[in-house]
This record gives sequence, C-alpha cells and structure tokens, in this order.
Amino acid sequence: MTQGIRGLFAPERIAVVGATEREGSVGRAIWQNLDGFDGEVVPVNPRRETVFGESCFPTLADVPHDIDLVVVVVPPESAVDVVREAGERGVENAVVVTAGFGEAGSEGAARERDLQQVAEEYGVNLVGPNSLGILSTPRNLNATFGPGGALPGTLSFMSQSGAFITAVLDWANDQGIGFKDVVSLGNKAVMDETDFVDFWGEDDHTGVVLGYLEGIEDGREFIETARETTRETPIVLVKSGRTEAGAQAASSHTGTLAGSEEAYEAGLDQAGVLRAENVQELFDFARVLDGQPLPDGDSVAVVTNAGGPGVMATDAVGDSRLSMASFGDETIDALRESLPGGANVYNPVDTIGDADVERFRTAVDAALADENVDAAVVISAPTAVLDYAELAEAVVACQREHGKPMVACLMGGERATDAGRVLREGGVPNYFDPARAVRSLDALARQREITEREYGTPPNFDVDRERARDVLEQVQERGENRLGVEAMDLLDAYGIPTPKSEIVDTPEDAVNAAQDIEGDVVMKIVSPDILHKSDIGGVKVGVSPEEVYDAFEDLVTRARNYQPDATILGVQVQEQVDLDAGTETILGVNRDPQFGPLLMFGLGGIFVEVMEDTTFRVAPVTDREATEMLDEIQAAPLLRGARGRPSADRESVAETIQRLSQLVTDFPAILELDVNPLVATPDGVQAIDVRLTVDPDEL
Amino acid sequence: MTQGIRGLFAPERIAVVGATEREGSVGRAIWQNLDGFDGEVVPVNPRRETVFGESCFPTLADVPHDIDLVVVVVPPESAVDVVREAGERGVENAVVVTAGFGEAGSEGAARERDLQQVAEEYGVNLVGPNSLGILSTPRNLNATFGPGGALPGTLSFMSQSGAFITAVLDWANDQGIGFKDVVSLGNKAVMDETDFVDFWGEDDHTGVVLGYLEGIEDGREFIETARETTRETPIVLVKSGRTEAGAQAASSHTGTLAGSEEAYEAGLDQAGVLRAENVQELFDFARVLDGQPLPDGDSVAVVTNAGGPGVMATDAVGDSRLSMASFGDETIDALRESLPGGANVYNPVDTIGDADVERFRTAVDAALADENVDAAVVISAPTAVLDYAELAEAVVACQREHGKPMVACLMGGERATDAGRVLREGGVPNYFDPARAVRSLDALARQREITEREYGTPPNFDVDRERARDVLEQVQERGENRLGVEAMDLLDAYGIPTPKSEIVDTPEDAVNAAQDIEGDVVMKIVSPDILHKSDIGGVKVGVSPEEVYDAFEDLVTRARNYQPDATILGVQVQEQVDLDAGTETILGVNRDPQFGPLLMFGLGGIFVEVMEDTTFRVAPVTDREATEMLDEIQAAPLLRGARGRPSADRESVAETIQRLSQLVTDFPAILELDVNPLVATPDGVQAIDVRLTVDPDEL
Repeated sequence: MTQGIRGLFAPERIAVVGATEREGSVGRAIWQNLDGFDGEVVPVNPRRETVFGESCFPTLADVPHDIDLVVVVVPPESAVDVVREAGERGVENAVVVTAGFGEAGSEGAARERDLQQVAEEYGVNLVGPNSLGILSTPRNLNATFGPGGALPGTLSFMSQSGAFITAVLDWANDQGIGFKDVVSLGNKAVMDETDFVDFWGEDDHTGVVLGYLEGIEDGREFIETARETTRETPIVLVKSGRTEAGAQAASSHTGTLAGSEEAYEAGLDQAGVLRAENVQELFDFARVLDGQPLPDGDSVAVVTNAGGPGVMATDAVGDSRLSMASFGDETIDALRESLPGGANVYNPVDTIGDADVERFRTAVDAALADENVDAAVVISAPTAVLDYAELAEAVVACQREHGKPMVACLMGGERATDAGRVLREGGVPNYFDPARAVRSLDALARQREITEREYGTPPNFDVDRERARDVLEQVQERGENRLGVEAMDLLDAYGIPTPKSEIVDTPEDAVNAAQDIEGDVVMKIVSPDILHKSDIGGVKVGVSPEEVYDAFEDLVTRARNYQPDATILGVQVQEQVDLDAGTETILGVNRDPQFGPLLMFGLGGIFVEVMEDTTFRVAPVTDREATEMLDEIQAAPLLRGARGRPSADRESVAETIQRLSQLVTDFPAILELDVNPLVATPDGVQAIDVRLTVDPDEL
Repeated sequence: MTQGIRGLFAPERIAVVGATEREGSVGRAIWQNLDGFDGEVVPVNPRRETVFGESCFPTLADVPHDIDLVVVVVPPESAVDVVREAGERGVENAVVVTAGFGEAGSEGAARERDLQQVAEEYGVNLVGPNSLGILSTPRNLNATFGPGGALPGTLSFMSQSGAFITAVLDWANDQGIGFKDVVSLGNKAVMDETDFVDFWGEDDHTGVVLGYLEGIEDGREFIETARETTRETPIVLVKSGRTEAGAQAASSHTGTLAGSEEAYEAGLDQAGVLRAENVQELFDFARVLDGQPLPDGDSVAVVTNAGGPGVMATDAVGDSRLSMASFGDETIDALRESLPGGANVYNPVDTIGDADVERFRTAVDAALADENVDAAVVISAPTAVLDYAELAEAVVACQREHGKPMVACLMGGERATDAGRVLREGGVPNYFDPARAVRSLDALARQREITEREYGTPPNFDVDRERARDVLEQVQERGENRLGVEAMDLLDAYGIPTPKSEIVDTPEDAVNAAQDIEGDVVMKIVSPDILHKSDIGGVKVGVSPEEVYDAFEDLVTRARNYQPDATILGVQVQEQVDLDAGTETILGVNRDPQFGPLLMFGLGGIFVEVMEDTTFRVAPVTDREATEMLDEIQAAPLLRGARGRPSADRESVAETIQRLSQLVTDFPAILELDVNPLVATPDGVQAIDVRLTVDPDEL
C-alpha cells in the first residue's frame, strides 16, 4: 500500500468532488485551502458550471487529465460511488472527508463496509471517511477544511481527532512549530496508523512521527512496522482512553472497541514508541527529537545562574532514567578557575546571579567537553547583566561545537521571546519549566535506547503441535469451551514441565498410577461440569499409597452426590509437589482485540491479587522480553532468593514464558489461559495447575 | 511576630542603608525599584551626600523620622551593626539583601548567628540575609534588586530562591498574573515560611499562598500554622530536593540539612498544603484557586466540541480524585433536545464540530444545572463557526450564574488570545492542555477536602510515663544507646500489649517464670553487647516447661563462649505467640531533622522490605490519621482478612500507632524505634519484639 501513498502528499493533480462556493460549506473551505497548492486542482460537481472561476466537471469520469488524488466532499449517500469512479479510472489516492459512516449507526457502518470493499477492490489508498483532510507543506497542500494551515517543518502528525488537528495547528503556528505532513485519520476504513508509520519511516523529509490515537487497528502489525521505523525515526504518541472512563468515552466517540490499557502499554513499548502522557509532552518531546542529536549515554550536566531552578532540574533528573554526571578533575579545575568564589563547580553548576554570557559560555563549554557528560541543560533566571538573546546564541554555538544534545530553560516571559526564537532556529528547545526540559531530554535518551535495541526473534521450540491440537479439538468436539486438568497435556506438548500425572477410570488404575509416581499423591475429580472442585471436596492432597483406592471411590461418590448428571472423565492422580520448596508464580494469557495474546507474569496469591504486582507483554516474546518480565515486578528480588526464600531457576521461568507464548501464538483458539501456580524451585519449574477458555469456532 | 509583619509590606517610611548611584550595584537597583513607592524612602550611606537628589543620612541614627522598614544593602561586615542600630531605634522590620552569611563558609555562618541574635534581641522581623528583597503591590512597594516588578493581584508568593522570583515575575507579567506580596526568604535567619503562612493566612488581600521551598525550618510548627491558614486560604508549594540527587543539590545550594522526602510528603499533606510537582503546576493550581469557588463534590461535567480532547480530559479525570458526573434524566432530555443528532448527550458532552457559541452555552447551562454536577470543564477546538472571545464570555457568564467552579481549555494559539483575556478577567483559568485543566480542577477539589478536614487532637492515653522514663534512664546510665528486649517494658508502660515476659537470673527463676506463663515459651539471652542473638543461638523457640532449666544454662554458655566479656543482663522468658494466628505488621519511628518523629507503618517481612509498601505520618497522630495509615498501604485488604488470612483487629493496630506516637512525642531521646513484628490477630495485637536507639544526652 505504501507504494502509492506518496501520491497522497505529493500529487500533481487533485480533484475535489463536491467543490462548491456555498458559504459555510466544507466543499468551499477545502477548495479555498487548496488555493496555494503547487499543482493543479480541478473541481467536480454535477450541479455547478464553475467554482470560483474554474470550470467544473460533472463527474470524475469527465476529467480529461490524470488524477493523483481525489478529495471527496459529497453527501454520504454518493461517497461510495465517487470512490468507485475514482478506482475505475485508476486514481490511487482518496481522502474522504464526508461523515456519516461508522460513527453514525448501523446504516453508516454498512456504508463504511461498502466503502472499504470498493477501495480494496481498486487498491485505492483511502484516508477517512469522516476526516478533516490532509496537509503537506513541501507542496503547499492543504486539503483540509480546518481554519488554518501549517508552517513548514519536519514533524509528521496523524490524529484520530480532526478537531485536535485544528487546535494543534493554531497553537503550533503561534509557537513557530512546523510540519511536513498532517493526516486526519478519520474512521480508518482503509488507511490506518500503521500505513503512515510505515510511509513516514521511509520519508526523508520526516524527522519525527507524532500521533494522537484512540485505538490501534492491528496491534501486531503496528509493532512490527513501528520497530523498523523507530530505528531511524522516532515515534511519539498520545494514546488516549488510558483510564476506564477515558476508554468508555473514546469508544462512544469513535465506535471502536478499545483494547486494554495493559496491552497498549506493553505493545507501544515493544514497538519502540515514546508515549506522551498529554498534548504538552507530545510537543515537548517532538521539539527535542526534531532538533537535537541522540546522547551517547544518560549522564546530564546542569548549568544555571540560579540555584533554585538548578535543584528543580536535579529533582527531575532523579525522577527520570537520566543521572547527574560526575565531572572529571579537569572539568572541576577548569570551572574553579573560571567561576567566582561562591559558585558551585560540581553538578549542578551554579554560575551565580551575576553571571554574564561569557561566564555561562565558559561553564557550559567546560561541562560539554567532559567525556562523562552526554547532554546538558542550561537554565537561567533573568538578571540585569544577562542578555538572553546573546545567551541563546552562545547555547546554540556550544551545542554545534560539541555535538552533544542540549535543552534550554531560559525562564521568563517577554524577556525570553527573542531568545526563544534564536534557540528555535538553532534547534535547541526552550522550556519555561526545568522539569519539562529534563523530561524532554529523558525522552531523547529513551530514543537512543530504542534505536539500539536488539529485538531478536521469538524462539521456535521443538514442540508437539499435533498433540496440542488434539487436546483442543477434543474439547471442541465435546462442545465445551473450558479445559481443566486435561489441559496439562497441552503444556506438556509444549515442553512445559508438569508433575507426573495420569487420569484413571478405576480405583485399580489409580493404585497403579500412584505406584508409578511414588510417594504421596494429589487426587482430583476430572469433570467439565464441576468448576470448583475444592468446594465439593473433589481434591485430596497428600494421599498415601494405601489410601489411593478408597480416595478414588470417595471422590467419585462426592461428585455424583453433588451433581448426579455431571460428566465424569475420571480421576487425576498427580505427583505431589512441595510448594514450600519454591516460589509460586502465575502466568496468564488473554486475547486483546487489537494486540492478540497478551502475557501476564507475577508471583502467586497476594502478589497478583492484592499487591497487583504484574507485568505484561504482547506475544510472541523473545528471550530478552521474557527475562525483562522477571525483573520488572516489584517482587523480583524474591525470585533471586531474597529473605531466605529458595531462589528460582529464572532461566526456566523465562523459557516457560516463551513456550507459553509460542503455544498461544500457534493456537488463536486459546482465548484465556492461566498457569497458576507455576512453582519455580532452584532446579526448575513445574506447572501445577492450568485453566483455559477456548473459542469453540476457531482452531 | 505577626504583629509587626504588616509593616514589612505596608510601611510608611523605608530607609535603604547602602543606597547608592553606582552603576550595576544592588544599592542602586533597589533604590530605583523603590521609585514608585506610595510612601517615603530615605537613603542612608556615610559615603554619599545625596542619592539621585535625595539627601543621604550617614547612619540610621541620623534619620530624624520614624522608620518602619530598613532595607540593608551594605557589605556583610557591617550588616550586623546596621541591624543593631535599627533595633536600637525601634525599627521593627528589616530586609537584609546583603549576601555572605550562612551560604558562605564558617565565617559567614558565624556572622549569620550574630545577625540572628541581634534581630531576636531587638525583636526585629528580619527577612534574609541573602535575599532578593520583598515586593508588595497595594502600595507599589518593590524593595528588590530584580529587573522588574509585579502586577497587582491576590497571590502572595515566597521563595527560597531569589532568581526564581525574577523568572516567575517576568513570566507572570506576560501572562497577566498578579501578586499581592512577594518575599525572597534568603537564608531565613529569623523569618521563615511559617511566619509568612501565618501572616498571609490573616491577610484579607491574599487569596492564595504560593511558595518555592527547599526546606522547612520547623516542621511541627509549620503544620500547626498551615492547618489554620488552609481553613480559609489555600497554600500551594513546590518543595524541591524531592529526590536524592535533588536533596544533595539543595543542601549544597542552601547549606541546610534536608529532611527526608517521606517526612515532607507526610508533613505537607498533614499541614493541608497542596503540593505542586513543578513550576507549571504551581501556577496552574494558583489560577484556579484564586478565581474559582470550591466545588461541593468531585463530580465533573466535560463539555466539548471535539471528541478527542474530550477523551483526553476524561482520562485526566480517571487519573485524579475526580469522577465523571452521571447526568440526571432531565439533563439528558434537555441536551437531547438542544443538540443535533450526532452529538453525545452523555458525559463528556460532545456538541460536535459545527457547534456555535449558543449551542455551547445551552449545553454548559444544562450540565451545570444538574445537581449531580459539581464542576465543569469546557473544551473547544477552533472552528469556523465559533467565536472564541464570545465563547469565553459565555463561559464566564455560565460560571457566574451557576456559581459552580469551571475551567476552560479553549485550545489554540493566536486565536485563543482574546478569549484568554476574557477568561482571565472573569477568573476562569484557561489551559491549552485538557489534562492540565482537569488536574487544576482536581487541586480545587482537594482544597475543598482540606477546608472540611477534621484534624482532631491526638489522644492523651493514660500511660505510665515515669516507668518509661526509668527504662530510658537506665540505658543512659549504662552509657548505652541501644535497647533490646528490656525495651518491652517501655511499650508496656505505654499500654502497648506485649507477650507475658520476665527477665531472670537463674535457671530456677526461669522455671518459675515459665510456670506463670503456662505452655511453651521463647527464651532469649539479654545482653547489650550481643546484637544478633539468633546468629549465636541466643534465642530458643517452643521451649516446653521441662526444657526451661537446661535451656537457661545453654543460652548463658553460648553467650559466654561467643563473647566472654559480654555483659549478660539475664535471660528473657517470654510467652510464645502463634504468629500464624495473625498478620505481622511493622511500626517504625525515626526522627526527622525538620519534622521530628516520623511514624512508619507496613506489613512485616517482604511487604516492607521487598515491596516497599509503607506509609508515613508525622507524630503526634490522631485516630483518623492512624486509621488512614492502615488503609493507605497496598496490602490493606490483608488486614481485613482477604484471601483466607485471619483478619486483624484494626482498631487495636490504630490505637497502638497512637500510643507509640505518644511515647516518641513524650521522649525526644528516642531517636529510632522499630516494633517488629506487631502481630495483629482478630482479637488484638501483641508487640513481639522492639529495638530502639536513644540519644544519650537528652531526656
């Protein structure tokens, strides 16, 4: 699909179907916004002879020239036909501004399906419907009905909210922030965020990809594409609908079913996306990513003429992944020599209140020359001896000379205006608040980590996939959607250690099974109709060899008494695992509508249920990701044997996570799965129990 | 001290000691800034005849009129003498701008002590030294050497960083934000934050108290004073040095020993202070607190013309203590009637993109009329049909009519300028980012909670204070600073239940003691020289009556073998408590340099040490505060008996916290104390072990 997208943003000729002169109409607004376009625009409207002096064509078919892009502003009833006409004559790109589709009831939804089908049939790259339009500055293309345009720049921005685009552009024009392309995604019937991430990732004129999203259409595809893009081009997204209330509002706004916040949080991180919490962060991050090189490390120098703001910046460093650089002796000597007595030559460097530009320059220069310093924050309060614009020039010059990233915080109002412009032109972002300056630098450092990431490939273990399929098919054949103990076979087929176990039909077989296992055993009734076995006494723990026979009969009797018509598949005789010898962990999977299988890891019992100490990844996961999961939970030290606990075989736990990841990736029929507990001892792991829910219609 | 402070901000006559015409000097800058003062200013300088045409007096003693305020700009060597002269002639207020005191080595520190002594001797309300000065708009008083003044307003602002004041004022002038008083606290030799909180709390012209602090001089006094102030006047503070790196930077900047972040977090909350995380929040909160009434509850309505920003606001509500209001049927009907088809009549209300001011007004009006709505956020993106300034007027009018608090988020740049002014004049703060708008409203709701808080009084339990004093004195007499098991008496004296226990000298006494206790006992060696008893086998658990005699001899032998010269105070014979019958909790105390005794509560073992699940309060605590501690930890459900645990007698735990609070408040000699574990069963609590460190010099 990427092939033709270039024509969206750099067409030679555009047809506006629905162009008109009618006051207050969208068709008029778009026509007028296209006025400055570096190419040709032709109006199409069967009900007009001309539009602002340009001869109108009654239909697309009547336009005698090649068309690269069609902008559709007709009523919803005719939009599908217009796109079909476009497809028939080989137009590759369309922006459907018209609303009244998926967002407008079932009739609209049907219409949107038609639109999608037609676009796909003819291979039209369709933006929208229900889009504000698109905008691209290199060719002065403004095919939106918004009230204003954009300054030229290297930020490319997509938004699921058209109104948000108008707000951002108005504000950005004021701030001197420019864009390369802007897209209002609308209902995303055809083209979605992944298409644009892909396109902008290969676009030389895009420096940073920005987005406001309320949902991601295909999470897995997005992750794969974004990983490639972020090797070179940072992606910063605001994903709203983070909270329950927000997700509900987003769903009523766009009509899309939102995936879980856990899935988005994990998925966006796995995709290498920098997630901004709000609008302000989106552009705070964009500015530094656009203008500054990536740092070599996380060590920051702070140079200030004001102690207080220096402390604020240091706090912000403490809150981030960054650290305060320790200066080398040479740097300290140089600073001591050049700064007056009361100054602080350690980090944060305080050049004190009477510092002029020259003193600032010397201090910044010394700090940046230090090999322990990867980046710098320059902070100043206005004083009588300091010319802010001159200081801004010195900051830009220092940045260029040393090639290390810098951010500025020349605090003030009117007084900082000129300086702000100098810094902006020099690519050094300026923030009023020291905390914002540092957080932005932190985003830059995270971007470095992202570009250096080794994602690796999820391992492909040698498993018995056919056996697993058999287990799942048996459940489906029974018309069930839940598996209990028999699901242990599924784990076994995927090489996940389970206690020795057998399902038997007679007390004699039970005795034999127990003999094979040796020692005491656990016995459980196996019945798809009895969910809470423990509650009816359907589980016996610590059964000695002599007790096995009677235990079998007792279990069956209890089950019969409890529910006479229950299907009883037998009794499970299982090796008894000493839970105290290890740490109980939980592995869970559920299927997210956008991202597919989502893995959860945590320690058993209260750790997950009361302390909510869990971590998530979108499957399939690599070794690195599985190991990260073990380290991310707060209780991680317990797996290493803290406080006298038996340590856990962490490698086996990580491997189990990956094997489970392979299982749920191989079988989309598995909707939910919990291994609880997975006991991790110093010598390995054992899955003691498992529950799962399958989709009876899929395998 | 408050008595005379008014003269600081509203003096009739000011003497500037050190006034001069010398270019670039601080004495000249202050003189010039005082130019517009609504009162008289006299220059004092032995080396000048006149200053800008005003006759100069050689010394303060030579000034023939009453002086209300002296501003000191002389070199540090003469500053103390000038303050003494001022004191001698009865001047009540002084601002010492001169630097070179506590911040400048040991010589400076000695000078600061002198300054403090002189000020206290004469009862001078002294601001500084090392202060930028003070400023008060009602009388056009600008006694600072900063580059600009302030607009009039009702915010009163103190800052431990003078440079930060210059930055804030420059920015605030640009934003149209005004101040009543501004104080640069400097080194706080005499007047500190508590004095100004006290003064502004009673000042009719101050609407909100704002501060930037790196430390608080006397935490307990601050809490008491702030609690009174915040009944009427909100206090918003940025307290920097939150992180380890930040605290270190603050300490090298101001030379003050920083208390722990835990103490500040607890203390500021107990004081009723709203803590802002950064500069931006400080003024975001200030604007809404200054202009808007407090809400009656936490339910918010969001009205927007743009779905996306509406979702962002809803997310921000989800992140806060606020909740999205559920509209009543009447409201829904009214909205349905007045809004077009595609609009969302539920909260967040989406008036959709073609909404004009009238439609907005109707929707806002309907929402505010709903009794389920306590406050509203109005959000808009710029559109062709919407006049922002007119919308701003409608917002202000709606706010006035309904009297419920509102914040606005009319997004845009240039386009939002006029609207911003209209809103500012109407007292409705406007934010570009929906998240900031909501967070500010959240601060307003927290302020309501603060004004309604019942702090109560810490209970005064009937305790045996003399017996406790004896225990502590015995340790001090021994020249020790640690107590072990004998500290159980201390708990007992304060009515904290401990297991039955006796310290005995002979095996025969041990047998008798065990008989009194009944059942198995725990036996421990008692020696101040043996800290880790368990390591040398100095603790025996589950000792049956028959084993007591031998156990005694064995414990003593082990102790002798381990350390032949150890002082052995005896053997403790203690009732054995069944730990499984309850939940192990930990109570800890340490003494913060600013706030005094700080109480910690958490569950035992991994909960505190690995999960870091703890909560803090500055002592003394009330019943309400103690109960809050129980509820605040993540593991709180376990105390209620979650997951099959025995529930805990929460009232007894809360009472124990308060008794311990009384103990450490009564005896400042107790530096650190840990009750670990305090076992909480369904029927009560028992303190199983205690450790403490005492100050040998204090009692």
